[in-house]
Amino acid sequence: MGNHPHQSTRDGHDAKTPMAAPQAFDFRKHGHAMVEWIADYLDGIERHPVQSTVEPGWVRSQLPAAPPTEGESWDAVMADVDRIVLPGVTHWQSPNFFAYFPANSSGPSILGEFLSAGLGVQGMLWSTSPACTELETHVMDWLAGMLGLPAHFLSSSTGGGVIQDTASSATLCALIAARERATGFAGARDGLQSHGPRLVAYASTQAHSSIEKDIRIAGLGAANLRMVPVRADRSMDPAALRAMMAADAAAGHRPFFCVAAVGSTSTHAVDPVPEIAEACAAHGAWLHVDAAHLGIASLCPEFRAINAGMEQADSYCVNPHKWMLVNFDCDAFWVRDRAALVQALSVLPEYLRNAATDTGKVIDYRDWQVPLGRRFRALKLWFVIRHFGVSGLQSLVRRHVALAARLRDRLAADPRFELVDPTPWSLVCFRLRGDDAHNEALMARVNATGRAFLSHTKVDGRFVLRVSVGAPGVEERHIDALGDLLCA
Amino acid sequence: MGNHPHQSTRDGHDAKTPMAAPQAFDFRKHGHAMVEWIADYLDGIERHPVQSTVEPGWVRSQLPAAPPTEGESWDAVMADVDRIVLPGVTHWQSPNFFAYFPANSSGPSILGEFLSAGLGVQGMLWSTSPACTELETHVMDWLAGMLGLPAHFLSSSTGGGVIQDTASSATLCALIAARERATGFAGARDGLQSHGPRLVAYASTQAHSSIEKDIRIAGLGAANLRMVPVRADRSMDPAALRAMMAADAAAGHRPFFCVAAVGSTSTHAVDPVPEIAEACAAHGAWLHVDAAHLGIASLCPEFRAINAGMEQADSYCVNPHKWMLVNFDCDAFWVRDRAALVQALSVLPEYLRNAATDTGKVIDYRDWQVPLGRRFRALKLWFVIRHFGVSGLQSLVRRHVALAARLRDRLAADPRFELVDPTPWSLVCFRLRGDDAHNEALMARVNATGRAFLSHTKVDGRFVLRVSVGAPGVEERHIDALGDLLCA
Repeated sequence: MGNHPHQSTRDGHDAKTPMAAPQAFDFRKHGHAMVEWIADYLDGIERHPVQSTVEPGWVRSQLPAAPPTEGESWDAVMADVDRIVLPGVTHWQSPNFFAYFPANSSGPSILGEFLSAGLGVQGMLWSTSPACTELETHVMDWLAGMLGLPAHFLSSSTGGGVIQDTASSATLCALIAARERATGFAGARDGLQSHGPRLVAYASTQAHSSIEKDIRIAGLGAANLRMVPVRADRSMDPAALRAMMAADAAAGHRPFFCVAAVGSTSTHAVDPVPEIAEACAAHGAWLHVDAAHLGIASLCPEFRAINAGMEQADSYCVNPHKWMLVNFDCDAFWVRDRAALVQALSVLPEYLRNAATDTGKVIDYRDWQVPLGRRFRALKLWFVIRHFGVSGLQSLVRRHVALAARLRDRLAADPRFELVDPTPWSLVCFRLRGDDAHNEALMARVNATGRAFLSHTKVDGRFVLRVSVGAPGVEERHIDALGDLLCA
Repeated sequence: MGNHPHQSTRDGHDAKTPMAAPQAFDFRKHGHAMVEWIADYLDGIERHPVQSTVEPGWVRSQLPAAPPTEGESWDAVMADVDRIVLPGVTHWQSPNFFAYFPANSSGPSILGEFLSAGLGVQGMLWSTSPACTELETHVMDWLAGMLGLPAHFLSSSTGGGVIQDTASSATLCALIAARERATGFAGARDGLQSHGPRLVAYASTQAHSSIEKDIRIAGLGAANLRMVPVRADRSMDPAALRAMMAADAAAGHRPFFCVAAVGSTSTHAVDPVPEIAEACAAHGAWLHVDAAHLGIASLCPEFRAINAGMEQADSYCVNPHKWMLVNFDCDAFWVRDRAALVQALSVLPEYLRNAATDTGKVIDYRDWQVPLGRRFRALKLWFVIRHFGVSGLQSLVRRHVALAARLRDRLAADPRFELVDPTPWSLVCFRLRGDDAHNEALMARVNATGRAFLSHTKVDGRFVLRVSVGAPGVEERHIDALGDLLCA
C-alpha cells in the first residue's frame, strides 16, 4: 500500500460530532472500497447487458416505502447498490454502447469529480473560491486553442469561456444574450410583451430539440423559431435562410438569433457557417454554433475544416463530456462579447457584494449562467488534459474515427444495407433497404442481445439506425462483434 | 488493507487502448491516493485560513500558457493541486466557515458523487438508465415525507419531485410552468409578444436575486416583478400583496406567479404562506415556495410550523446541498401538478423516442428541467439518508440550531451589539450599534484572521453581519472562538 495506507483515524462514531463530520463516517475505509468497486465495475463492464432489462417500476418495488429512522450500515447500502441499482443501469461506459452520443469518461475525470466533491467549494463568485474561477478561465483558454477556435473567444480578448452543465444551457445563455442585445436590454427589463418588433430565431430542421425548448423557456415562442430547410446532405440551406430572414424583416420582424449545427444530432450534418454568418451579419443576428458532439473532432488539425467561418460566430459550445473523456457534466461555452452575456444575466444583491467584485477585475461566473451556485468542474477538465495531453486526446478521436470507418466499410460492402448521409467522423447512420418495420426489428433484435446498444433517428421520414462510436474502451473487436450482429 | 487490497490490474499503459480505457490510467492506485488526499484534507481543514488569501490573477499566473502536448505524470498533477489549487480555495467545509449558507457535505455524499461519476450514466430518459429515474422519484417521495410536506407533492398523487442543480433552476421551472398555465400554453407556443394581458409576478423585497434573474430569463421583464413590502420581521406583508394584486388586476394585468420565501436569504424571515396562498388563489396565481436553506429545519417536528399553508402551494424547493449533508448540487423540487410542468417543458424529437416513453408509464426527467442531460444525483441523497437515518439528520439540525442560539445569547449579552431580526434557527444576524463603517471594519478584521469567515447583508439600508451555522464539523469550540473574535 506504500504511500497511502488504508488507515482510519476514527473507528465508528465520534461522540461529539455524531452525525456531521465526514470522519464520523469511516471515509477512508469506505472510500477505498468504493475505488475498488468502481475499478471492478469498469474492468468488468462488458459482463452486463448494455441496456438495462428491468421493467418499469422494478427498481422502486425493491425499495422500502419509508426512509430509515436510524442510520444503516454501509454494507447494507452497498449491497443494495449491487442488488437494486446495478440491474437498473444502462452501461454508458461500455465499449458496446453505441446509442445517442458517447458521454465518455476516464479515470482522471472521475477523480476530478471526486476531488471537486471532496473540496465542496462554491464557485459562484471569484471570491468564494478564486481557484475555481481562475482554473476554469485558464483551461477554457487552453481548450479554445486546442480546438483551433478564433482568438475572440479567449479571455484575453473581449470574450471568454465558461463551463455549463449542458449544451442546452449554453444555448439558453446565448439566446438570452442575443435577445437582450436585440432589444437593447429591454426584454429583461420590461418584458417581451412591451417590445415592438417580433423576434425571430432560426435553426435547421435537423437542429437539436433543446433549441426549441430554450426558445420556449425564453418566452419567445416556438412559432417564432423558423426551421430552415436543409440540402441533400442535411445541412442548412443558406439560400433558404437568407430568404426567410428577408421575408421576416420585410414583415417588420427582427431576425435576431441563429443556431448553426456543427454536427447535427441525427447524422452529424455540418451547417455552412460562413454563409450563415453572412446572413446573420446582414440582419445583426447573433450566431451561435452548437458543436456539442462533433466539435471535439477539431482537436485534430485534419478535421478542422468544421471550424470554417467560426471567426464570425458570437458564441460556440462543445461538450468535453461527450467525446473528450470528461464525465458529465462539462459543456464548454464561449462568447465573443462577455459584456453582453454578463449584462443580460447579472443581478447583484447586497449579500453577494464583495471587494473583489467591486474592483471589476475578476470574473464572477454566476453572471455567465442560469443558476447562482456552481461546483468546481474545471478540475476534471484540467486533469484530463494534463493526463492525456493534447496528443493523447487527438489519438482518441482518430481511433474512434477509424473504428467508425471500419463499420461503415463493412456495411457499404453488404448489399442489404444503405448508408445514410455518410460522414468522415465517428457516427455511422444506415438502414436496411426496405421498409421501416425491418429496421425497427433489426434494432430491437440487436439491443435485445444485450451485447450492443444502438439508437435510431428519422431522416426524410424514414427510420435510420445510428452507431455512435466513442466509448472509452471501444476496440476493433467490439466493432466487429457489432457488425456480426447487424449482418447476421 | 484487508478487504480492499491496493492492486492495479494493469501497470502503465495498455498498448491496444492507450488513451481511452480508464484502466490505462492506474485508477486503483491514484484513486486510493485521492481517498487519502480528501480524508487528510477534511481531517486537517482547520489548518487553512478559511477564506483564500490569493490576489486576483495569482492562480492563473502559476499555470502554463499552453496545455501539455504529451500527457504528464499524475504526481505532477497532484503536486499542482497542492501548490496552486489549495491556496486558491475558500474552505466551505471548514467548521469556521459561517458565510452565505452552509453548503455542507459528508462522506456518504462524497462517495455518492464519486459512484455517480464512476457509473457515468445519463438519466435524461427513464430508458437511458431506469435506476437513475426510479431511485430519484422514490427518494424524493421519502424526503417529502421527512419534511412533512403535503401529499400532493408525492409521485403517487398528481405531483412529484425532481432533483435540480439549484433553487434558481427550480424556481425557473416553476415560473415557466406558471407562465404556461396562465397563458393556456400560448407563451411557449406563440411567444409573450403575442399574449394579451401583462403577466405580473410577486415576491417580497427580501426575496432571493435568482427570482428576478429567472423573471428576466423567461422574458417577463424585471419591471413586472413586484417587490412586495415587508412587515417588521421582514416577512412579506400579505395586505400589501393583496393590494398590489388587486391593482394589477384592475389595470387589466394578470397576477400569475408569487414566490414565498420560507427563510429569506438575508435574515431567514418566513413569509406568511397561508395568507399569500389565499391571495394567489383569488387570482389563480401559481404559488412557489422557496425554502432553499431553512426548509431543511422541517426535518424536525418542532420546527414544522414553517410548513404552514404548504398544502396550498403549487411548488416547493429546498436544498439538501445547503443543510442536509449532501454535496452541491442537489436542490429538491416538487410540484403539485406534474402535467403542467411537463407540458411546459417537453419537446420530444424522434431520436429520443423509445418504447417506455411511448407507454406513458414512466417518468422522463428531461421534461422536468431546463437541460436535457442529467447525472445520477439521487445516489448521494440516498446514501446520506440511509447512512445518517432520519434521526441523524434531525440531530444535525438541532445541533446547529443550538450552536446558533449559543452565539445569539452571547451577542445579546454584549451591549455593543444589537441582534437584527432574531430567529430561532441557525442564522444569526447582528451589528455593532453605530455606523456601517464600524461593522464593515469588524467583518474585515474577523475575516482577515483566517480563523473564521462570515458575510454580510443590508437590512433597512444598514450593514448587517450574518453568521450562518451549518458546517459539517462545527462544535461549541468554533462558536466560542468566533464569539471571542467578534467580542475582542
